Amino acid sequence: MTHADVRFAIYGEANAACDNVVLVCHALSGSATVHDWWPDLLNMLDPTRNCILCTNVIGSCYGTTGPLSINPATGEPYNSTFPRVSIRDMVRAEALAADQLGIRRFKGVIGGSIGGMQALQWAVDFPERVEACVAIGACPLGAMGIGLNHLQRQIIALDPLWNGGQYSPEAPPIDGLAIARALAVCTYKSSELFDERHGRKPNRTGPAPWESRGGRFDIEGYLDHQGEIFLRRFDANSYIAMTYAMDAFDPARDFGGKHSAWSRVKARVLLVGISSDWLFPAADIRRMGDAMKAAGVNVTYSEIESQHGHDSFLAEPHQLLPVTSAFLKI
Amino acid sequence: MTHADVRFAIYGEANAACDNVVLVCHALSGSATVHDWWPDLLNMLDPTRNCILCTNVIGSCYGTTGPLSINPATGEPYNSTFPRVSIRDMVRAEALAADQLGIRRFKGVIGGSIGGMQALQWAVDFPERVEACVAIGACPLGAMGIGLNHLQRQIIALDPLWNGGQYSPEAPPIDGLAIARALAVCTYKSSELFDERHGRKPNRTGPAPWESRGGRFDIEGYLDHQGEIFLRRFDANSYIAMTYAMDAFDPARDFGGKHSAWSRVKARVLLVGISSDWLFPAADIRRMGDAMKAAGVNVTYSEIESQHGHDSFLAEPHQLLPVTSAFLKI
Repeated sequence: MTHADVRFAIYGEANAACDNVVLVCHALSGSATVHDWWPDLLNMLDPTRNCILCTNVIGSCYGTTGPLSINPATGEPYNSTFPRVSIRDMVRAEALAADQLGIRRFKGVIGGSIGGMQALQWAVDFPERVEACVAIGACPLGAMGIGLNHLQRQIIALDPLWNGGQYSPEAPPIDGLAIARALAVCTYKSSELFDERHGRKPNRTGPAPWESRGGRFDIEGYLDHQGEIFLRRFDANSYIAMTYAMDAFDPARDFGGKHSAWSRVKARVLLVGISSDWLFPAADIRRMGDAMKAAGVNVTYSEIESQHGHDSFLAEPHQLLPVTSAFLKI
Repeated sequence: MTHADVRFAIYGEANAACDNVVLVCHALSGSATVHDWWPDLLNMLDPTRNCILCTNVIGSCYGTTGPLSINPATGEPYNSTFPRVSIRDMVRAEALAADQLGIRRFKGVIGGSIGGMQALQWAVDFPERVEACVAIGACPLGAMGIGLNHLQRQIIALDPLWNGGQYSPEAPPIDGLAIARALAVCTYKSSELFDERHGRKPNRTGPAPWESRGGRFDIEGYLDHQGEIFLRRFDANSYIAMTYAMDAFDPARDFGGKHSAWSRVKARVLLVGISSDWLFPAADIRRMGDAMKAAGVNVTYSEIESQHGHDSFLAEPHQLLPVTSAFLKI
């Protein structure tokens, strides 16, 4: 592939010195339109004073080139023949887009989850272009996370409509995608939250599981619903592409060791861990912070106390945004 | 169903007073032959002095009536038309088998996971027949556990060979079963253990994930292997039956409240929690112990410190067996 389209959104205007631009990086299922999925952050960043840029990442399905795009060589969608992309590729595409927009340097690069991986990759790959980096619930994925992503990909490929990834646009493998998403939702939340919200209660509608064979617990109804609303808005090959990128993120491997990777960073870095996050455990993020510090990075670690699990980066704006705005001096 | 076969194994002999009989209850994938899956416990129970009984539970696929059994009304296997069974049904079938063997009362009833649920159900449903009850890593399942069991059943039903549960014995839905098992294996282990064993290492055989599209991380190879060895030895409808029974276990619901359920118990009870168990969190087991104590049960709580997660009941004999043998006075 020699060409890629990048869909982006800009909120507010760059000033003459172009030193008020903040880049927001989206996570697995996000898009360029920050106001749709992280309105609290957008307000905090204040488009009347700052210019906020967000691009849809390469491999996704919201306007930037990805598996649903037409392969000019065949006239058909790439589908599963789309090249495997990494977080580095996403960031490189974003950097090229920023070049075309005339943005050389960011006052801040901020993201949660895969978005946080991008923020870190920006700081490592383009040290001169990032003044401050905020990565929330993000670090190289541990074995449990990789394993559960692997199973999600296998679930999608089990769908009778999968067809080796070359499914028809009219009949995508939606059942597999829905189950994979429901499994991902489990990794984004916490046991504590599920127990508080759903516990062993019967589903809100329909029979209880102890009343009839078709009965469900509330958590079953919730997960089914989460799967169902997702399959209407996401593409299975993009989902697979994004999880592979997530698994592969590992600056230490890119640069032959932690120290050589992190010592490239010139940005001030804020790492945010989440107490109940079991996909990106707070302890792993703290450890990454220690390694960055050892490599001379100006790094701050902050922890959100929450039952919301990995999703806290979106679910706990009252905890996250004050820390972030103070750090970014916004 | 008016008739059920129960496959059982007996180790050692009952004495004249028949007061040396211990019942071992197996978990999801176990069988009557304790020496195959819990040899350390069997040694500890000492068949030269005690009589150890284990039955394969109803709904399983190791000899006791279950989905693979022939429905006399049709001459075909029940498959998914097999009646939904509960932990109570399993225990009732076991009690009828014990009656036929002339065993009235057990010196101990012991099990881990679904086996621990059976031990507890025995103490509640047949209080006169249980002297001591040992339940390891067992309590009513929380919302996360129910949700992940639900997804496992959905994965099996996604398999193109599923056929509404009426699959042919020659072509069972093995791919779905393998993925479901791999997901279950994640719930039986811990993040800490996976990180220590597998981390971000490439798979032992074949290319690394960053070398080629078919490459895998070590954890991916491990989970694939766990799925593969399981599909050769288990039936998908039995798997579904067992997980439904696991989800439904809830003595408080059976008897209209915790207090009325637990106050039935006359046995001394040992509950064992496991520090890294995220399927049956130690805190949930401790809380259940408090409710039992409040209902007047003679209950002891003990905790295994281990990285092995839920599987510690099998993986940590050096921690578990001394506590158990002291409690059972064996």
